[in-house]
Amino acid sequence: MRIDGTSENHSAMSEASQKDPLVLFMPSGKRGRFPVGTSVLDAARKLGVYVESVCGGRATCGRCQIEVQEGSFAKHKIISSYDHISPVGPKEERYAEVRKIPEGRRLSCSAQILGDLVVDVPQDTVVNAQVIRKAATDRVIERNPAIQLCYVEVDEPDMHKPLGDLDRLKLMLEKDWGWQNILVSQHLLPDVQKTLRKGNWGVTAAIHRDLEGSRPNLIALWPGLHNEAYGIACDIGSTTIAMHLVSLLSGRIVASSGTSNPQIRFGEDLMSRVSYVMMNPDGREAMTKAVRQAINDLTARVCAEAGVNPNDILDAVFVANPIMHHLFLGIDPTELGQAPFALAVSGEVHTWSREIDLAINHGARVYMLPCIAGHVGADAAGATLAEGPYRQDRMMLLVDVGTNAEIVLGNRDRVVAASSPTGPAFEGAEISSGQRAAPGAIERVRIDPVTFEPKYRVIGVDMWSDEEGFEEAASKIGVTGICGSAIIEVVAEMYLAGIISEDGVVDGSLAERSPRIIANGRTFSYLLRDGEQRITVTQNDVRAIQLAKAALYAGIKLLMEKQGVEHVDMIRFAGAFGSFIDPKYAMVLGLIPDCDLAEVKAVGNAAGTGALMALLNRDSRREIERAVNRIEKIETALEPKFQEFFVHAMALPNKVDAFPCLSTVVTLPARKVPTDDGGGEGGGRRRRRSRE
Amino acid sequence: MRIDGTSENHSAMSEASQKDPLVLFMPSGKRGRFPVGTSVLDAARKLGVYVESVCGGRATCGRCQIEVQEGSFAKHKIISSYDHISPVGPKEERYAEVRKIPEGRRLSCSAQILGDLVVDVPQDTVVNAQVIRKAATDRVIERNPAIQLCYVEVDEPDMHKPLGDLDRLKLMLEKDWGWQNILVSQHLLPDVQKTLRKGNWGVTAAIHRDLEGSRPNLIALWPGLHNEAYGIACDIGSTTIAMHLVSLLSGRIVASSGTSNPQIRFGEDLMSRVSYVMMNPDGREAMTKAVRQAINDLTARVCAEAGVNPNDILDAVFVANPIMHHLFLGIDPTELGQAPFALAVSGEVHTWSREIDLAINHGARVYMLPCIAGHVGADAAGATLAEGPYRQDRMMLLVDVGTNAEIVLGNRDRVVAASSPTGPAFEGAEISSGQRAAPGAIERVRIDPVTFEPKYRVIGVDMWSDEEGFEEAASKIGVTGICGSAIIEVVAEMYLAGIISEDGVVDGSLAERSPRIIANGRTFSYLLRDGEQRITVTQNDVRAIQLAKAALYAGIKLLMEKQGVEHVDMIRFAGAFGSFIDPKYAMVLGLIPDCDLAEVKAVGNAAGTGALMALLNRDSRREIERAVNRIEKIETALEPKFQEFFVHAMALPNKVDAFPCLSTVVTLPARKVPTDDGGGEGGGRRRRRSRE
Repeated sequence: MRIDGTSENHSAMSEASQKDPLVLFMPSGKRGRFPVGTSVLDAARKLGVYVESVCGGRATCGRCQIEVQEGSFAKHKIISSYDHISPVGPKEERYAEVRKIPEGRRLSCSAQILGDLVVDVPQDTVVNAQVIRKAATDRVIERNPAIQLCYVEVDEPDMHKPLGDLDRLKLMLEKDWGWQNILVSQHLLPDVQKTLRKGNWGVTAAIHRDLEGSRPNLIALWPGLHNEAYGIACDIGSTTIAMHLVSLLSGRIVASSGTSNPQIRFGEDLMSRVSYVMMNPDGREAMTKAVRQAINDLTARVCAEAGVNPNDILDAVFVANPIMHHLFLGIDPTELGQAPFALAVSGEVHTWSREIDLAINHGARVYMLPCIAGHVGADAAGATLAEGPYRQDRMMLLVDVGTNAEIVLGNRDRVVAASSPTGPAFEGAEISSGQRAAPGAIERVRIDPVTFEPKYRVIGVDMWSDEEGFEEAASKIGVTGICGSAIIEVVAEMYLAGIISEDGVVDGSLAERSPRIIANGRTFSYLLRDGEQRITVTQNDVRAIQLAKAALYAGIKLLMEKQGVEHVDMIRFAGAFGSFIDPKYAMVLGLIPDCDLAEVKAVGNAAGTGALMALLNRDSRREIERAVNRIEKIETALEPKFQEFFVHAMALPNKVDAFPCLSTVVTLPARKVPTDDGGGEGGGRRRRRSRE
Repeated sequence: MRIDGTSENHSAMSEASQKDPLVLFMPSGKRGRFPVGTSVLDAARKLGVYVESVCGGRATCGRCQIEVQEGSFAKHKIISSYDHISPVGPKEERYAEVRKIPEGRRLSCSAQILGDLVVDVPQDTVVNAQVIRKAATDRVIERNPAIQLCYVEVDEPDMHKPLGDLDRLKLMLEKDWGWQNILVSQHLLPDVQKTLRKGNWGVTAAIHRDLEGSRPNLIALWPGLHNEAYGIACDIGSTTIAMHLVSLLSGRIVASSGTSNPQIRFGEDLMSRVSYVMMNPDGREAMTKAVRQAINDLTARVCAEAGVNPNDILDAVFVANPIMHHLFLGIDPTELGQAPFALAVSGEVHTWSREIDLAINHGARVYMLPCIAGHVGADAAGATLAEGPYRQDRMMLLVDVGTNAEIVLGNRDRVVAASSPTGPAFEGAEISSGQRAAPGAIERVRIDPVTFEPKYRVIGVDMWSDEEGFEEAASKIGVTGICGSAIIEVVAEMYLAGIISEDGVVDGSLAERSPRIIANGRTFSYLLRDGEQRITVTQNDVRAIQLAKAALYAGIKLLMEKQGVEHVDMIRFAGAFGSFIDPKYAMVLGLIPDCDLAEVKAVGNAAGTGALMALLNRDSRREIERAVNRIEKIETALEPKFQEFFVHAMALPNKVDAFPCLSTVVTLPARKVPTDDGGGEGGGRRRRRSRE
C-alpha cells in the first residue's frame, strides 16, 4: 500500500491501477493504492479511515457497510464502478439473508478491490435500529470512539499449554485485533470462564484505549457476537441536566432527554449551593448523591425510550460548570466560592463508572472535559470544542449567558477566555415581572415608536397580541410575566422608541403623551400589559438589565482588548438563553459588540454537543485538552480596565463604542455627544447625579 | 557524567579525578565520573542506583543515607576517603539534631562529591524504627519498589493562572521528580484541596509505576512530609496464610505472622473446597469472603505488632496455589477440579485493594504472581523466583511437597515444571497414627538395626526417648502420633534396619526376633511406642508413603527425562514440610533422586520469599513473568511414561535408579537384582501377586 498524494496523468494511472487500484474514501478524502483482492475494510484500516467492525471480518456484525460511488470523478482522476468491486460472496449473502443490507451497500470486510474505487463510508450504519430519533445536532461527527468491540474466537483449553482462559483470550485479541499488553478490569475475572463457555469460545470484548501512553483496557465481555455499544454525553447544568444516548457503533443519537437538577432544593443558584455545603456538614455528600441519582434516573429514562440495556453503556462523557463538576465528582466546591477560586482539578478527568456510582456497565469509562478556569468550566470547554474558535481564521466570540456569562474569544492564533458576573437578570430573576420561559410568559415584544403601544407574543399562544382571538387564547393560559428573551426585547424596543434614554432612564415626561408611561414612586414604568395581572417594566428592571449587559459587554471588551481587536467577525450564542434571544435586540441593547448580523448565530447546547464529540471521537478529547491548555484565562476582577468598560457599557448600546453594522438594519436614536472621549466616565457620573 | 566501564592506569585516573571524580556504588558495583560538587544522590540516580529519597533532596526525610568507604581499593583502582566528600552542612546538621544519623552515615542529598569515592548504599536505612524484627529471610533483596513517595511543594493558586490544585501538584511532580502524564485515582479528588492546605502546600504523593507501557499513577496523598510506606507479601496456602509486613522505604521486614486459612471449615483439602463450591450456590462467595477476611485480620495483626497504620500499606503482593488464587480473586475454581484444569487467568494480575476488599490504603495496588499451570500455582512461581532455577548454570530441582507436589527442574537454558498428586500422606493424613506437627507428635526416629528398638524425639520434649527423664517430660504433653517428617524417617529407618523389604513389605518372620514386629490381621506392623496410646506403623501406612513418594519421584523423573538428565545438581525443598524432613531419609526413601547431600537444602517458605522479592523490586515481577512464560509445563497425567516411573518408584529407594551419592553416607540394604532392565515392571507385578 502506498499513500497516494501526488497527481498522475490519466493513462499512467490506468496502468498502475490494473495491478494496484486506487481507492479514495469519502468523506475523509484519504486515498491509497492496494493490490487487487484487498478487502475494502483492510484498505480503510491501512489508511486510518475509521470503519467500524465488531466481528473482525467474519461478515456477521454488518457494521462495516460502505457504498461504492459509480462514475468518473475528474477532480480525483478516478473512474469508479460497481464492476471494480468483487461480487457479493456466500458470507455476505448469508448475512443479507438474516438482516437487510440497504440497497447499494456492501460489507467492506467481504468486498474486495478489483479496480479504482471511490468509497463512501456512511456515518449512520444502523444494524439493530429500534427507535430512530431526529438528530439532536445536525453536524456529522467523525467517529473514533474510545471503546471498540472486538469479537474473537478463543482456543479451547489444552493441558499441554496451560495458559489461562483469559490469557488465551488476550492472545487472540492481539492476534486478530493487534491489542498488546491489555489490562483486564478485576471485576471481569470471576466471569471470564462462564462467558467463554457460554459463547462456545466465541466472545465479544470491549476494549478501552483512550489514554495515550497507557495500555488498552478490557472493560466488558459478552458471550458470542455482541453487536451493540452505547455511550452517554451529558451536560450537568445548575438548573437542567441534558443527556444524549448514542450508539458508539454508528454514531447515531438514539435518545435525548433532560431533567431538572435536583440540587435546586439545596439552593437555586450556584453560590447558594456552595453556601449550603459550607453551612451543612453533610451538604456536599447530599448534593453529590442527588446529582448522581438524577443522572442515573435520566440514564434509565433515555435507555427505556430507546430500548437500550444500561449495561450496554460503556462510555460516558460529562461537561459541567466548575461547581457542578466538583459536586458531581464528590469534591467540596467551597474553594470556588471565594478568591482565588481554586479548582481542585482543572485538567480532564478519567475515571470508571463504578467509582462515581453510575448505573451503567460496571466496567464503563468516564471522561470529563477539562475546566478552563474557576468560573469557566468544562461546559465552556465543551462549547469551545463544538464551535472551535481555535480552528477559525477569523475572530470568533463565543458567549454562554447564564448567571455567569462564559466568554471565549479567539482564532487559530490565540484564544482568550473569561467569565463575567452577569447575575440572574437575563434569566428573569430580579425583574419585577420576570419569570422562566414557560406557557404564559411574554417572549416577544414590539413597541410602536409613535403611539408607544406594544404588541407581544406569549408562550403557548400562536399569535401576536394585536391579532384577533389573542385575548381568548391568552385567557386560557393566563399571561403571567416576561421571560428572559422578552426582557431583552422590551428594553431594546423602549430604547428604540425613545421611552428610555441611552442612559436607561424612563422618560417621565412621556406620561403626558401615553397612558403606558406611568409614575412609580420617584421613577416611571412602562405598562406592557394591563388587566387582571399588570405587567410593567420598571426603572429598576431597566437598571438590572443594564447592569447585567454591562457586565457581559465589559468582559467581552476586555478580551477584545487582550486580542487587540475592535471588531469580532463571528458571534456564537451558546445555551438555552442564546437560542431564544434575537441577536438584533441583543446588539441594540449593547449586550454583544457590533457584528454582521448574518454572522451571529445561536448554537443551542454547544456544551452538550462538545460532550457528544468527545464521546464519539477521542481525538476531540486530545484536541480540547490541548486547546484548553493554550487558552489564556483572564480574571475580570483583576483587570483595572474592567471598571471603565463596565461604565461605558451601562449606556445603550454603549457610551463610546460604535455599532456600524447594526446601524445598517436598525435606526438607533441619535447619540448624545459626550463632552470628550476621555470624559465618558465623568459624564456618566454627572448624569447619575442628575437622576437623583 | 560518563559511565566508566574501562580500566585506566592509575596516574591518568588521578588527573581525571581532579575534575570529574570517580564514584563507585556498592553493592551494585555501578560506577561513573561526576563533576566536583555533584550530590551523591544525583550521582546515584544518574547511574540507576536505587537510593531512596522521599523529600527530594531537602534533607528532611533521612532516607537517602550512604556510607563512604575509607581506603585504597586496588581492585577498583580507587582511593576513597572521607576527605573526598563535602563536610556536613547546615541542612544535614538540622536533620541530625532532630533524628540521629548513625555513625559514619551521611545524607546523600546533601553530601557532595569532592574526589574519588567508594560509596556503600545500606539496605536497612531505618528512620522511624518502632519494632525491629529478625529478618524472615536472610537474603538481601535489592530494592526497586513499585511505589515511590515524593514530597513536593506546590505553588499556591493564582487567579492569573487558573490551573487546578491537583494540576499544579502534577506539574511539580513532573518538575521535581520527572513523573509525566500522571493518572490520578478518582478517590483522591475529593481531598486534594484539604490535603494541600493542611500541608501548607507541601504534600507527599505516593506514585505507583509498575506497569510497563502505562502511565504512573498517583494513588495516595498526605499533607507535609510523609515518611512511611509499607507493603505486605502474602502466601495464601490451603492450610496457612503467611504474611510479611515490609517497609517499602528500607526493605526491612517489620512483622511476620501467619494464620490458619478459615476455608478449612468448608473442606480440609483443596478438592473438597472445589466440591463445596460445586454443591453450594453461595459457596464460592462464602469462601472468597472468608479468605479475604482472614487476610484483613492478619494484616491488622501484623500492623498492630509493628505499630504501623494499615493506611500506610500501599502495595500488596500475593502468591497462592491455583485454587486459593482463584477463590481469593472471586473466581469459581470448578474448572480446576476437572480436566483440562483450565485456569481462568494464568498471567500476573494487577488490581487495586478496593477491588478485592482489602482493608489497607484505598488506593493501594495489588499484584499477584502468575500461575505456572492448573496445578502449579503462583506459589510455585514465587518459589521459582526465590530460588531461581532459571538463573542457575547447574540443574536445580525445586520441590514443594503438599497434597500436590509442585516440581520445577531446570537451569538457565530450560526449565520444566509439573505437579504430582502425592496425596496427603506426607502431611500425616491416611497414616494410622499420623497427626499434624504439634506438641506430642513424634518428629524424629532412629531404629537399631540389630535389636529393632527405636528411639525418637517428640515435639515439645527436649530429649530423645532413650534419655533419662524423657518419659516424665513426655507424660506431661502426651505422645499422640507421628508427624510428617517422622513418617519419612520411620519408614526409611525400617527399610535400613531390614524390617521392610525394598518392596515395602513388613517382614513378618521378624516377629519371632522382636516384639516390635506384630501381626495385624494378614499383615504386620512395627510398634514404635507402647503404652497408653500405642503408636504403630502398619503395612498400610508404609503403602501410603510408598504411593506418595512414588508419585513425587515419578513426576521428578518425568521432568529429568524431558531435560535429558540422569542426575540433578541441586535440590531445594520449599514449604514447611521440607523444613523438617531430613534430606538423607528423603533420599533413602527414594522421595528425591540421588544428589550430593550438601546440595540438598530446605528453603522454608520460598513462595513467601518470592512474594517479598516481587514486593520490594518490580524488576523481580518482570523476571518471574518472563520466566513463567518460558517454563514448559508437563501434565503428568498425559505422559505415558509416568506410569512406568511410578511403578519403579514404588520400590525403596527405587527399582532401577541408583543412588551413588547416598551410598557414600548410608549403607543401603543390598538390592534384589531384577531379572533384566526391561522386566522391572513385570517383576513388580509378580511380586505384587506374591504378596496377596
